[in-house]
Amino acid sequence: MNRTLGVCYYPEHWPEAQWVEDAARMASLGIVHVRIGEFAWSRLEPRRGVYEFDWLGRAIDVLHQAGLKVVLGTPTATPPKWLVDEMPDMLPVGADGLTRKFGSRRHYDFAHDGYLEECKRITLALAKAFGAHPGIAAWQTDNEYDCHNTTLSYSPAAKAGFQAWLQRKYQSPEALNRAWGNVFWSMEISEFSEVELPNLTVTEPNPTHVMDFRRFASDMVVRFNKAQADIIRAHSPGRDVIHNFMGRTLVFDHFDVGADLDISSWDSYPLGFLEDRSDQNDDWKRQFAHAGDPDFQAFHHDLYRATSKGRWWVMEQQPGPVNWAPHNPAPRNGMVRLWSWEAFAHGAETVSYFRWRQAPFAQEQMHAGLLRSDSVEAQGFHEAAQVSSELGALDRELSDSAGKADVAIVFDYPSAWAWEIQPQGREFDYFRLVFDFYRTMRRLGLSIDIVPASAPDLEGYGLVTIPGLFTWTPALIEAVRAYQGHVLIGPRSGSKTADFAIPDSLPPALPKDILDVRVTHVESLREDTPVYLAEGGSFQYWREFLEAGPETENILTTGDGVPGLVAQGNRRYLGGWPDQGLLYDIIMRLASRGGLVTKELRDGLRLRRHGNHVFAFNYGATAFDLSALGWTGKPLLGDLMIEPSGVAITPLSRAGS
Amino acid sequence: MNRTLGVCYYPEHWPEAQWVEDAARMASLGIVHVRIGEFAWSRLEPRRGVYEFDWLGRAIDVLHQAGLKVVLGTPTATPPKWLVDEMPDMLPVGADGLTRKFGSRRHYDFAHDGYLEECKRITLALAKAFGAHPGIAAWQTDNEYDCHNTTLSYSPAAKAGFQAWLQRKYQSPEALNRAWGNVFWSMEISEFSEVELPNLTVTEPNPTHVMDFRRFASDMVVRFNKAQADIIRAHSPGRDVIHNFMGRTLVFDHFDVGADLDISSWDSYPLGFLEDRSDQNDDWKRQFAHAGDPDFQAFHHDLYRATSKGRWWVMEQQPGPVNWAPHNPAPRNGMVRLWSWEAFAHGAETVSYFRWRQAPFAQEQMHAGLLRSDSVEAQGFHEAAQVSSELGALDRELSDSAGKADVAIVFDYPSAWAWEIQPQGREFDYFRLVFDFYRTMRRLGLSIDIVPASAPDLEGYGLVTIPGLFTWTPALIEAVRAYQGHVLIGPRSGSKTADFAIPDSLPPALPKDILDVRVTHVESLREDTPVYLAEGGSFQYWREFLEAGPETENILTTGDGVPGLVAQGNRRYLGGWPDQGLLYDIIMRLASRGGLVTKELRDGLRLRRHGNHVFAFNYGATAFDLSALGWTGKPLLGDLMIEPSGVAITPLSRAGS
Amino acid sequence: MNRTLGVCYYPEHWPEAQWVEDAARMASLGIVHVRIGEFAWSRLEPRRGVYEFDWLGRAIDVLHQAGLKVVLGTPTATPPKWLVDEMPDMLPVGADGLTRKFGSRRHYDFAHDGYLEECKRITLALAKAFGAHPGIAAWQTDNEYDCHNTTLSYSPAAKAGFQAWLQRKYQSPEALNRAWGNVFWSMEISEFSEVELPNLTVTEPNPTHVMDFRRFASDMVVRFNKAQADIIRAHSPGRDVIHNFMGRTLVFDHFDVGADLDISSWDSYPLGFLEDRSDQNDDWKRQFAHAGDPDFQAFHHDLYRATSKGRWWVMEQQPGPVNWAPHNPAPRNGMVRLWSWEAFAHGAETVSYFRWRQAPFAQEQMHAGLLRSDSVEAQGFHEAAQVSSELGALDRELSDSAGKADVAIVFDYPSAWAWEIQPQGREFDYFRLVFDFYRTMRRLGLSIDIVPASAPDLEGYGLVTIPGLFTWTPALIEAVRAYQGHVLIGPRSGSKTADFAIPDSLPPALPKDILDVRVTHVESLREDTPVYLAEGGSFQYWREFLEAGPETENILTTGDGVPGLVAQGNRRYLGGWPDQGLLYDIIMRLASRGGLVTKELRDGLRLRRHGNHVFAFNYGATAFDLSALGWTGKPLLGDLMIEPSGVAITPLSRAGS
Ligand SMILES: [Zn+2]
Ligand SMILES: [Zn+2]
Ligand SMILES: [Zn+2]
Repeated sequence: MNRTLGVCYYPEHWPEAQWVEDAARMASLGIVHVRIGEFAWSRLEPRRGVYEFDWLGRAIDVLHQAGLKVVLGTPTATPPKWLVDEMPDMLPVGADGLTRKFGSRRHYDFAHDGYLEECKRITLALAKAFGAHPGIAAWQTDNEYDCHNTTLSYSPAAKAGFQAWLQRKYQSPEALNRAWGNVFWSMEISEFSEVELPNLTVTEPNPTHVMDFRRFASDMVVRFNKAQADIIRAHSPGRDVIHNFMGRTLVFDHFDVGADLDISSWDSYPLGFLEDRSDQNDDWKRQFAHAGDPDFQAFHHDLYRATSKGRWWVMEQQPGPVNWAPHNPAPRNGMVRLWSWEAFAHGAETVSYFRWRQAPFAQEQMHAGLLRSDSVEAQGFHEAAQVSSELGALDRELSDSAGKADVAIVFDYPSAWAWEIQPQGREFDYFRLVFDFYRTMRRLGLSIDIVPASAPDLEGYGLVTIPGLFTWTPALIEAVRAYQGHVLIGPRSGSKTADFAIPDSLPPALPKDILDVRVTHVESLREDTPVYLAEGGSFQYWREFLEAGPETENILTTGDGVPGLVAQGNRRYLGGWPDQGLLYDIIMRLASRGGLVTKELRDGLRLRRHGNHVFAFNYGATAFDLSALGWTGKPLLGDLMIEPSGVAITPLSRAGS
Repeated sequence: MNRTLGVCYYPEHWPEAQWVEDAARMASLGIVHVRIGEFAWSRLEPRRGVYEFDWLGRAIDVLHQAGLKVVLGTPTATPPKWLVDEMPDMLPVGADGLTRKFGSRRHYDFAHDGYLEECKRITLALAKAFGAHPGIAAWQTDNEYDCHNTTLSYSPAAKAGFQAWLQRKYQSPEALNRAWGNVFWSMEISEFSEVELPNLTVTEPNPTHVMDFRRFASDMVVRFNKAQADIIRAHSPGRDVIHNFMGRTLVFDHFDVGADLDISSWDSYPLGFLEDRSDQNDDWKRQFAHAGDPDFQAFHHDLYRATSKGRWWVMEQQPGPVNWAPHNPAPRNGMVRLWSWEAFAHGAETVSYFRWRQAPFAQEQMHAGLLRSDSVEAQGFHEAAQVSSELGALDRELSDSAGKADVAIVFDYPSAWAWEIQPQGREFDYFRLVFDFYRTMRRLGLSIDIVPASAPDLEGYGLVTIPGLFTWTPALIEAVRAYQGHVLIGPRSGSKTADFAIPDSLPPALPKDILDVRVTHVESLREDTPVYLAEGGSFQYWREFLEAGPETENILTTGDGVPGLVAQGNRRYLGGWPDQGLLYDIIMRLASRGGLVTKELRDGLRLRRHGNHVFAFNYGATAFDLSALGWTGKPLLGDLMIEPSGVAITPLSRAGS
Repeated sequence: MNRTLGVCYYPEHWPEAQWVEDAARMASLGIVHVRIGEFAWSRLEPRRGVYEFDWLGRAIDVLHQAGLKVVLGTPTATPPKWLVDEMPDMLPVGADGLTRKFGSRRHYDFAHDGYLEECKRITLALAKAFGAHPGIAAWQTDNEYDCHNTTLSYSPAAKAGFQAWLQRKYQSPEALNRAWGNVFWSMEISEFSEVELPNLTVTEPNPTHVMDFRRFASDMVVRFNKAQADIIRAHSPGRDVIHNFMGRTLVFDHFDVGADLDISSWDSYPLGFLEDRSDQNDDWKRQFAHAGDPDFQAFHHDLYRATSKGRWWVMEQQPGPVNWAPHNPAPRNGMVRLWSWEAFAHGAETVSYFRWRQAPFAQEQMHAGLLRSDSVEAQGFHEAAQVSSELGALDRELSDSAGKADVAIVFDYPSAWAWEIQPQGREFDYFRLVFDFYRTMRRLGLSIDIVPASAPDLEGYGLVTIPGLFTWTPALIEAVRAYQGHVLIGPRSGSKTADFAIPDSLPPALPKDILDVRVTHVESLREDTPVYLAEGGSFQYWREFLEAGPETENILTTGDGVPGLVAQGNRRYLGGWPDQGLLYDIIMRLASRGGLVTKELRDGLRLRRHGNHVFAFNYGATAFDLSALGWTGKPLLGDLMIEPSGVAITPLSRAGS
């Protein structure tokens, strides 16, 4: 393998005279990939049909001549003003019914056919112009789908698109009425054109109605992305098609979009994400304010490794303080290096920093770059340089791929939509539940693969967990049946049919030979009223009342006498949302029964196995002696005494496993 | 009397083949009343003028043949899509100016004349079709007026209706200008058509303007309900007309609507209401998370006993976990039975459970029924069966009616509107104030009647309290003058004229022979700055500066020397919002002076006198020995040692009174 | 000088028969100035062109005959209904895109040309009618600009006005694109008509775009005010033109508006403002709930003394409880007097109470007056009477003006806009930062002048502070260069160019001979992650990474080794937001190096030097012995032992300075 570093660059922001020097500095830093162009539509086509591609060609030439490989972005995240003025109904509409305006970015509705055509037109023009350029190594479609929440748009275009989508799905209004249960509250329709978008209703709309709208909205993103990918593939053969996903963005199915990409990438902002999208409490946020959550990036690395079947990048790596979170602290020295290595430990091909030079103007002027706005090298530059030098020494020693992980979590975007539509208890959030499982496994030193519910391959894992799954696919049922290792299912898994109804046989709706358990009813709980288990620990937020068949065994029971964890062969069903300690115990025992070696890691320390090596990362503020985990000998990188922000790599054989 | 149980049933949700078995199971459970039909418009009239009543007739027949009595609901809470598409301006408009859409329920504006005509049309058709059916025992108009807050709608229809209402009330713009004080801020109008609805103003609108709008909105609900009641009475003689009110819903005057009903009923969801509409703190909510607030249901039982002059039902009784509150815990075992008996203790004729079978689809799929969605009996079923069996044993022994209570609270919907319009301090809420008085009396073991300010009968009570009354009616002044018992008035009572102005003689605006006290000014207080009384205790949130005449006596005085509680004969004026302990002391002393026996009940225990019996209820989590309250001998129902969720009934003579 | 008391009076609210008695009571109380007329448009012109000025003339006559001086308000804050109906597009539009409606006040858009013409018409009519009346002493333009937040309006009128404003400023779209950095995110425009208002964007709009919109919006207020001032000056020569500003209202540049006034005035509501616009914590709010923040009024007194070059009034002084804050407590006895004297201590010419008599009707019926609504004297009346009597005794002894203060703070409205647009950290608020500096100086017993960044005169101060300045003016750079005393600059000062970009030389962008320091980057901090300084104390919310040149000296250094306070000659740069204790130490040391005498005042006690006297005020709840501060001898007013709500005045020579 040839792991590379990259950087995001905006030649249109700087005098052309500066490009050559910039390219030379990039190359000498050890940068290989340079992403450009993704916001430049107004410069590429200042008026309809007037293409000004020359400057972009010259920029590509300059980079290419410096030995750099260009990732060219399609500029469709920032349609120019003249285009919006031509088709103002392309603008997205909020759930409040108010149209969003031109003036920032992502001001379009994914369901707008006219805008889709415009995107195909500009993509085609760019692909024809630069598709065969030897400097072009890859393409990025658009930028950060759903950043700023435009996937769910309530525009006339979305309404028409949704009605057509429903007609294709259901064929007849009667079928739709039946599937949605529209007899309830007289919601029946007699033509598809009667279907409204599910916003601004007097009280909650029908969950099946919303679920179909969510599926439709996700499909519109898939359609949008595929339209560009197809054009690029036709006109720029041999180049990878990439999109840069975001963190904790669940509104569209990244497996579906990822299927049309060669490489999934994501934009990793550890400090910003800890501030603006973490469920952790204030104490945790304080503790990791300058380091980022020790598991959040890892989760997304593992997720996006899955969405395009293994190939993945970090397209934007936070290089210093950013501008968009409620607070924007500076990374502790060493963290930019650590984050880069954490990505490589999870199998990244490329880690690309955002951005080359801080722009002194416009919205992101307070967002650090590798260079300061006065072109002096910033802290991120020095850390990238260190990574580059370390990569030079180690890249060949490391395996080509991360390899199969110890354990797997089944992850499923529709489940996120389902529980957002019907949380039933205020705290019930699919990501939060799955992430609790993920973090627990990581605290145990396990390496994790994320597996889609739609196409699950469970072979070879020591343990598979399936928390909060909306509905079973036949494939997943068969995979569970075939799988010989331990499976931990629930809470709330299989609790709905695909039509968002309670299954006839009640949840979890598995054949009795797999799991003879029924959830007769559930309760959602205030944070201060957990349900305690007889064996210790508690269920928080959510607990289920289980009836279990004769082939099952009670492993845990609640204080009020309800089965809490039930086993049937190698399969277990968990009837509640366990507190952190309880989940730790459950998973530790199952992992150990599955023959896995676990370690008890303190909060700041994390491990990741990559091929024949183990990586250690210290997100904490104090040093730690890795010998306590059984590490022996001098690591390939770093020391046994791992300092704050430190990284260590050692062969599997010396990692105490 | 013949107390009955009932249930809510949706034949249109289930295969017709199942109806007979369902009816038989209901009958064998001891159900007498079955409410049906209230959301079925799209099945009764799938297209304009195409009435499909046959299925409903067959359903009524099936129930009737099983010996059940049908309560038939008019389906007007869920106008079908075709009707909304015909007259889209029937949709309600929020204070934000945004129109609410079809897609759930209650999507209509009470002030829309066209929709009113449609409701009369479908009601007439149903009344003609089924009014004389021997299985029809009663009718329910619409469903849960103002559930989901549509009474206050800011639509063009509401604007036109309001202008016409004002014209009838004031006759001339000059009279309106005078009444509202429109000289202030140049708000004067010269034609009624100039009056706007009081939303989206730059800063607060004129309180008299808003008050009239609130009166108008309430009147529209009255008009809407009366239109249906009149038709039903004309075509279904001898059947009771009922509406099912909600908890803590104050936006329309339930006394006014109740005057057009034979029976007031309400939908009692103790756990949901504790979660989503209680002022109590987290500790209280935690303590009663699985039992419900010990006083909230009682208050509404007493309230709705008053709104239709004595006859009242629980139309929907929570049978298990629901789906709509922030958290939806399961009732503790026994609570469904306890809630049922609490209703009977307050004089209910019928307690009807919502719903027969949990529907596995649509919005309420997580709402428990007496049966699970797979038709197995749920916990609520077993508890209803127990109540049915106990009723069989006891119904004849119990008095026909609850009889006159010990004490009375004057309750007044316009006062709730007034203080919502002009709280003056953030915490000032009429319901909260009244409920503080109610709970205090109940903690003292007293039984309470609620008396409307509009038609007060104060005779025979040991104590009458009048907190927070917006404005006096002449009838109430005369009733207070005539009443010989103790009256506790205030805080804030009589502080406005009917035109929402400060009375010329200053509050409380009573003749000097009744109470020679003036509130010269008031202050609203942060929670952390109470005003302490010299005698102990404090005023929280609100205190008044009183000037009292020579015939008065100071009972309590604030630490800064202002009269806090003033007496004049049997009448007392209270110049602040007392803390819980202070209010307890004040009421205990007054009750005892009024010859009432009080008991000091701990939080979970409650008593209710019904005719010649006393009921005890244990909402708490530990058992209690009722002998400590002076109970002797074996109770008719239950034991002296009352368990959690327990109910006990004993003759008055053995209850230590 | 002749310090006066005033009162706000609404003859149109009362029977004409009462006017004579009211005027007589005012005069006997010692009132001199009476403001009238500012909300009376519907009475002055009930229909277009029908002027009814007679009643106003009679009211002026009555007041004049009682020896009172009238301040006549233009009624433009309350356009009547008929006018709004004629031009409904004059209404302001919120950032939510929703039009605000008639029904309260301030329902107009400053940018609406048609409404501006109407205001000029009514102002001209009034100025012609009463401009020469001997009873007219002054005029008030409109009332409380931006009370209720209408300066930022997103109406079509504002959009057209903004485009025209931009065209005047930039001349060409290219210049605008360059200045705004519109190449970023393809935001480029090709005609000024393409510029949108910066609301309802998908994510944040360009900060330069917003900054220009904020400048435009401020200019519209200036234009609006100047149009009236010009007419009044032309037709009412010799009379002062006044506007009444509000507290913590930063949305328009009060220096710009003030330049067109003879006298700045403001409406001082100490209790209301503590409740609804203070950053202080709950404990502080509790402590001063009945006294008001000890520094908030002082700050605005000093600010509005600056906005019209020295002449200033309190136009509305809170006289008792008000109606509009979340809680509305009563002032502690004596506070109305204290507030009045605090204003005079800061150089006020007039303190005018709002209002004469409490109106029993409409929005402000719960707002106290000097008289109760039943015309009995309220507490405020008695305290005003005391001030009047004390003024009679002392006015001649006191200096004509407050004189130059000890220290200065540079204050700048655009800086407030800038950091609201780009806080970078949630807590960064310009007013809060400046007020921290102000309060610290006041805790040190220093008297403070506020100096505009646009026209700074720094001569003669012992210390000048410049926190949080958006951008330097050449005048201010020269003033700093010339100034010999100590200057404390930062944090965040000079961090942007006028085009809202990071300066080429990085912040603070001062010539090296003034301050050779560069802020390479910054971080915003969670409240629980301060940066500690090696010398003690901490930076909260905000800290900068400084690089300092060879001519500088490190005064303070952070625990992680970054310069925290850097000195170069008499100039210091502060690289963070200091906690209260640290700021106290820094300023105390600088003040003492600047030869100023400081005192350590506890929270409730405050001093203000006025000419040759020092005033002491006790906002606290316990008495204090002023001898502890070095006061000697019997004060002119009050005693050395200053009681709660007490005021003392002593000659400078006896104040221990
Ligand atoms: Zn990004
Ligand atoms: Zn209901
Ligand atoms: Zn005011």
